[in-house]
Amino acid sequence: MTYLDEDVQKDIITRLNRIEGQVRGVKKMIEEQTDCESILIQVASLRAGLGQVGRIVLDDHLRTCVMDCVNKGEGEKALAKLARALDRLLK
Amino acid sequence: MTYLDEDVQKDIITRLNRIEGQVRGVKKMIEEQTDCESILIQVASLRAGLGQVGRIVLDDHLRTCVMDCVNKGEGEKALAKLARALDRLLK
Amino acid sequence: MTYLDEDVQKDIITRLNRIEGQVRGVKKMIEEQTDCESILIQVASLRAGLGQVGRIVLDDHLRTCVMDCVNKGEGEKALAKLARALDRLLK
Amino acid sequence: MTYLDEDVQKDIITRLNRIEGQVRGVKKMIEEQTDCESILIQVASLRAGLGQVGRIVLDDHLRTCVMDCVNKGEGEKALAKLARALDRLLK
Repeated sequence: MTYLDEDVQKDIITRLNRIEGQVRGVKKMIEEQTDCESILIQVASLRAGLGQVGRIVLDDHLRTCVMDCVNKGEGEKALAKLARALDRLLK
Repeated sequence: MTYLDEDVQKDIITRLNRIEGQVRGVKKMIEEQTDCESILIQVASLRAGLGQVGRIVLDDHLRTCVMDCVNKGEGEKALAKLARALDRLLK
Repeated sequence: MTYLDEDVQKDIITRLNRIEGQVRGVKKMIEEQTDCESILIQVASLRAGLGQVGRIVLDDHLRTCVMDCVNKGEGEKALAKLARALDRLLK
Repeated sequence: MTYLDEDVQKDIITRLNRIEGQVRGVKKMIEEQTDCESILIQVASLRAGLGQVGRIVLDDHLRTCVMDCVNKGEGEKALAKLARALDRLLK
């Protein structure tokens, strides 16, 4: 089965590990009553980090899985599925 | 010191715990080569969850910390600090 | 040449007309010194309206133009071009 | 009545004029059947431009109107109204 490139998978896992640590950091900030502005900036940074993960997954997905389906003549189904995911991602 | 209401703090911690679990879930999805659309939908859901956390922090922050500063005559400083955080949050 | 469906084109034009009117409305609000919160809510509504236009264009584009390229064996080029646009749209 | 600074008002009007022209441009692109990727990039640019307008209005609003209310002892009401607008803006 075609899937995301191995180095892309590794990159995403590294990013998600960092994001997971950052989420734990925000919990600690709340517990230590860190000023809310710093918390809001961390939340913004987390959202940006996740946006980047989404773009990386999507970009490689188009180049691997969708491309593979297209080459196998299953492009229509792959594009319909992609459209549903994009609709959610863009909301 | 004035800070976020205790029940708001608890609510945010609960939400961040759920978000942390969801981030671990996305890592597992990558490792198990789950289809990318499901991953993208999870990333969108994570971003929405973090957006909700940001709105809750901001809302309670205005009602507690900023309001308290205003009442103490330190409103100008509090609003300037808030403006910087909002600028990041809205990007 | 394959392009967006005609009824989709009409729907988008109608939405853009409404958006254009709303932009003019915001200018008038500034000139009449309407309260800023109402202006911010209009700006948020405009952004949501444009997001909806983006999703409609993208959705129909996938079903028409990209699908057509795929069927002509030009899927790879179409997907690469799409990836670049999505990268911008998701930022 | 305190309101947005005059030069900020002018800057916002200039930006909204540019945005209005850009919206008309997108309509023309649809009518001329310009490729959808270019349209999506314009829509993304429009959304970014409106986001910038929102940030400018909000920033000056905090420094002028809200600050003025705070100085008049009407801070609580101003912050509650601001909270409602921010909730919409951050969605």
